[in-house]
Amino acid sequence: MFRTAELEQTVSKKVFKARAQDIRQQLLEAQMLLSRTADFSVMVDFAGVDGAGKGSTVSQLHAWMDTRLMRTNAYGPLPEADRQHPKFWRFWRDLPPVGRMSLNLSGRYSRPFLDRVNDRISEKEYVAELKRTQAFERALADDGMLILKFWMHLSRDAQKQRLEALEADPETAWRVARKDWDHWEIYDRFVETAERTITETNTEYGPWHIVEGMDSNYRTLTVAQVLLDALVARLEKSDHTPTHELLIDAEAMEAEDTLPPEPEGHVTVLSTLDMSPTLDKSSYQRKLAKQQRRIHLLQREALAKDRSSVLVFEGPDAAGKGGVIRRIIPTLDARNYRVLQFGAPTDEENARHYLWRFWRRLQRSGRLTIFDRSWYGRVLVERVEGFANDKEWRRAYAEINDFEDQLIEDGTILVKFWLHITPEEQLARFEDRRLKPYKRWKLTTEDWRNRGKWYEYENAAHDMVKYTSTHVSPWELIPADNKNYTRIKVLKTFGDYLEKALED
Amino acid sequence: MFRTAELEQTVSKKVFKARAQDIRQQLLEAQMLLSRTADFSVMVDFAGVDGAGKGSTVSQLHAWMDTRLMRTNAYGPLPEADRQHPKFWRFWRDLPPVGRMSLNLSGRYSRPFLDRVNDRISEKEYVAELKRTQAFERALADDGMLILKFWMHLSRDAQKQRLEALEADPETAWRVARKDWDHWEIYDRFVETAERTITETNTEYGPWHIVEGMDSNYRTLTVAQVLLDALVARLEKSDHTPTHELLIDAEAMEAEDTLPPEPEGHVTVLSTLDMSPTLDKSSYQRKLAKQQRRIHLLQREALAKDRSSVLVFEGPDAAGKGGVIRRIIPTLDARNYRVLQFGAPTDEENARHYLWRFWRRLQRSGRLTIFDRSWYGRVLVERVEGFANDKEWRRAYAEINDFEDQLIEDGTILVKFWLHITPEEQLARFEDRRLKPYKRWKLTTEDWRNRGKWYEYENAAHDMVKYTSTHVSPWELIPADNKNYTRIKVLKTFGDYLEKALED
Repeated sequence: MFRTAELEQTVSKKVFKARAQDIRQQLLEAQMLLSRTADFSVMVDFAGVDGAGKGSTVSQLHAWMDTRLMRTNAYGPLPEADRQHPKFWRFWRDLPPVGRMSLNLSGRYSRPFLDRVNDRISEKEYVAELKRTQAFERALADDGMLILKFWMHLSRDAQKQRLEALEADPETAWRVARKDWDHWEIYDRFVETAERTITETNTEYGPWHIVEGMDSNYRTLTVAQVLLDALVARLEKSDHTPTHELLIDAEAMEAEDTLPPEPEGHVTVLSTLDMSPTLDKSSYQRKLAKQQRRIHLLQREALAKDRSSVLVFEGPDAAGKGGVIRRIIPTLDARNYRVLQFGAPTDEENARHYLWRFWRRLQRSGRLTIFDRSWYGRVLVERVEGFANDKEWRRAYAEINDFEDQLIEDGTILVKFWLHITPEEQLARFEDRRLKPYKRWKLTTEDWRNRGKWYEYENAAHDMVKYTSTHVSPWELIPADNKNYTRIKVLKTFGDYLEKALED
Repeated sequence: MFRTAELEQTVSKKVFKARAQDIRQQLLEAQMLLSRTADFSVMVDFAGVDGAGKGSTVSQLHAWMDTRLMRTNAYGPLPEADRQHPKFWRFWRDLPPVGRMSLNLSGRYSRPFLDRVNDRISEKEYVAELKRTQAFERALADDGMLILKFWMHLSRDAQKQRLEALEADPETAWRVARKDWDHWEIYDRFVETAERTITETNTEYGPWHIVEGMDSNYRTLTVAQVLLDALVARLEKSDHTPTHELLIDAEAMEAEDTLPPEPEGHVTVLSTLDMSPTLDKSSYQRKLAKQQRRIHLLQREALAKDRSSVLVFEGPDAAGKGGVIRRIIPTLDARNYRVLQFGAPTDEENARHYLWRFWRRLQRSGRLTIFDRSWYGRVLVERVEGFANDKEWRRAYAEINDFEDQLIEDGTILVKFWLHITPEEQLARFEDRRLKPYKRWKLTTEDWRNRGKWYEYENAAHDMVKYTSTHVSPWELIPADNKNYTRIKVLKTFGDYLEKALED
C-alpha cells in the first residue's frame, strides 16, 4: 500500500515557491468562502510515521491560511480532566462549527493504533475501536462535515534518516523522543497495522490520503493540494463557486474617500507619535530571520516553563495586524498557539458579561494566544458605534485593568500592541487593495465607514492608552506606516518581553 | 456582628410546612419570570461555619425551585485543569446566563479565607484577594447581575453540638471531615476573620446576609425569603411584576380539546401497555420513604466509586416527568447532580452536529445527570414537527445507540424512562391545570398543539422504542396514569439499576 509513498519524491525550492504562491491564494479564498457562505465545517486528521512531518505540515498550513478560522487540536495522552468522560468526549468537544476547520494531531486513531501495535489491546478490541471511529465520522459526514485524513509515510530507511537528521541538529533534536525510536524498532509491525487501519477506515465520507513525508516541500504541496481540491469540490457542490469575485464588496470598490476634516486642536497620544521610522528591505530580511529565531527559542523555553503569552493587536483597519501576525506564526508550533478574532458575540456570549467571551478562550499554561482585536473593542468600536453606553464603556477601563492584572499575576506574559498608521497611509493601502485583484476582497464598506470616524476612533484610542497603560501592562505604540519597520519592531518588542519574563 | 445569629432561633414543623408551601410557590413563579422575561442573571454564594447547613440549604432550594433553571457550583481545591488558568477563571466559566441562577458553594471567598485563617497568606495578601472579589462582583452587578451572599453562622457551642450530632448519626457521619474539627479548634480566629471579611465586602451590589444555621427549618425559610424578596424587588425594578398572571397563556386557557380521532388499526408498543396499575396513598408514602433512602445510599456509593448515572425522561406533556424528578432530587446532594432541559439550540449548538449539545453537557465521573427530555427529541418532536428531515431522523437511531454505547462503556449507569399516559388522563391533567390558579401557567398552547398530533407522536415513540432498546440500554416503559404508582416504579427501577451496576 505504501509503495507509492516511498518513491523519494521531492520538489525543488524553485518549483515550490512558484506553486506555493498560487496554492496559498486559492486556499485562502476557499477558506474565506467557507467561513462566509458555506454550511459545513472541515475536519482534517494527520496520522502516520514519526518524523514524517505531521506537525510541521500543520504549522505550514497555519502559516499559509487564515489561522483565525482554523484550530489545531493536539491530543496527547488523556489529561486527568478528560479521563473523567467517555473517550470521544474530547473529540466531540473540539468539533469545528460551520464555516471553520480543525486540524487534528495524534487524534482518535492514535491511541488505539499504538495500543494495538504494542499489543496492549487485542485484535478484536482494535476492530471495535475502528468501528467507533467510523461511526463518529459517518455521523459528522452525514451532518455535512468535510472529513480528510492524511497518513504521512516514510520508508523504514527514510524514517531512520529523518530521525537521525532531526537529532543531529541541536535545534530540532528536542522533537525526537525515545518513543520515536521505539516505533522505528517495530517499523514492520507499525506499517502493517497502518495498512490494515487505512484499509478498514478508508471510506467515502472519510477518505485517507497517503503522503510521502521525506521531502518537506513535496509533502506540504501535496497536502495543500488535496485539501484545496476537496474544499473546492465541496464548495461547488454547495453552489458556492470558489472564486474571489464572490467575496468582493462592490460598494467598497466604488467608494470615495470618507476621511472627515481634522477637528481643530486635535492632539492625541497617537497624533504626536513619530511616524517617520522606516527600514530597508535587506536590513528587514536579516533582522526578520534573527528575530524569528529568537522568538522561536524563547517561546520554546516559555512552554517548558509553563509561561503563557497573550499578544493583543489593535489599530485602524489596514494597519497591518495580519501581516505582523503572519511573521510571528512561522516561529511557533501549531500545537501551542492560537490566533483569535472576534466577530459578533454568539447568543451564549450575549447572555453574559462582555468579558466572558475572552475568559472562556484563555488557553492553559504555556500556550501563546494572539488576539487580533480583543476586549478593547469595548472602549473602541463599541464606544464609537454606540453598542456600549457611556456608563458601560467608562467602567470597562477598570474591568479590563483588573482582567489583565489577573493574567499577569498568573504568570502570563501580556503584550499589547497598537499599530498606528496615518490617514494618508490608510488611504494608500485601501487604494492598493482596490487595485490588486487578489487583495480586492479585503476591502469592505465597513472599512470606509470606520475611516469616516477616524478622529472619534483616535480619541477613543487616546483614552484607552491613557486609562489602561498600567505599570504592569503598558501599551506598545508602534508607528506602522512602514511595514518592514513595524514587523521588526513588534517581533523585537515581543522578544524583549519574553526575555525579561523568562529571566525572572 | 454574629450576635443576632446566635439567638437559637427555630421554626416549628407546623409553621415551616405552612410557610414553605407559600414561599415555594412564589419562588417558582419569580424564577419562571426570571427565565422567561428578565434580562439579568442571579448568583448566590454560600459561605460560613462548617456544619451550619450550607450544602443542605442549597439542596433544599433545588428541591423547591425549578432545578432545571439553576445550577450549583461546588468549588473544592483547584483541580489540575483549573490550576492552568488564572484563579478566577473557573468563576467566570460558570457564570449563569441571563434568566438563570447559580448557587455557589466553597466559592471565591473560601480559599483566601481559609488561607488567611491558617496564616498561609498575609493580611495584605488577604485584603488584595477581597479587593479582587469585589471587582468581580462589581463588574457583574454593573452588568445587571443580582448577587446575594449568605453567611451561615453557628456559635462556638452550637458548631460543636452540630458536628457531634452529624457524627453520631451513621448516615450523616461522612459529612464531617477532619478539617471541620480543625476549624472548630480555631473558632475565634475563624469568626474574627469572617467578621472582617463580611464588613469589607458587604456592598450595595453584593450584600451579605447572616443566617443562623442551627435549625434547618429556620435557616431554609430565612434564606428562601431573602432570595425571594431580592428576586421580586429586582423583577419589579425591571417592570416585571412578579405575578403568575403574567405567565399565563390566555389562548391555552380557552382551547378546546385537540385530540384527533384514533386512526384505524392503531397499535403501538405503548397502546398495548397495561395502564391499570395504581397505588394508594399510604403505601405510596411508605414506599417513597424507603426508595428515597435506598437511592440516597446507592448514589453515595456510586459517587465514591466514580460511577456516573444518566437518567433520561421522555413522554407526552403532563406525563408527570417533573413530579418524578422532584421525588429523586431530595435523595441527592446538589453538588453532585444536575437536571437539564433543552430549549431551542443556541447558535453555537446549531453550528454543529445535533448530538454536540448533549456531549458538551456530560458531567465528569460520579455525577448524576437527569435529562428532562433529551437527544431523543431528534426522533420525536423533530421528526413529527419536520425540524429534522427523513434522512436525518432515520439515521439518528444508530447515532443515538452509538452515543449511549459510549456512555455505558465509560461506566455510566444509563436509565431511559418513557412515562406513558392515556389521552384521557392527559386531558384530565390539562383541565386540572386550567382550573387550579397556581397551575395555570403550566398549560400552554403548545401542549394543545402537541395533543393534536397524539398518534403521530405515539408512532414516533413506537419506532424509538423499537430501534433504541438495545440489550445494554432498554427503554423502561412506565404506565403513568397513576402518579403514585409511577413515582415508586421509577424510583425502584433506578434503584435496581444502581444496585446491579454497583454489584459488578
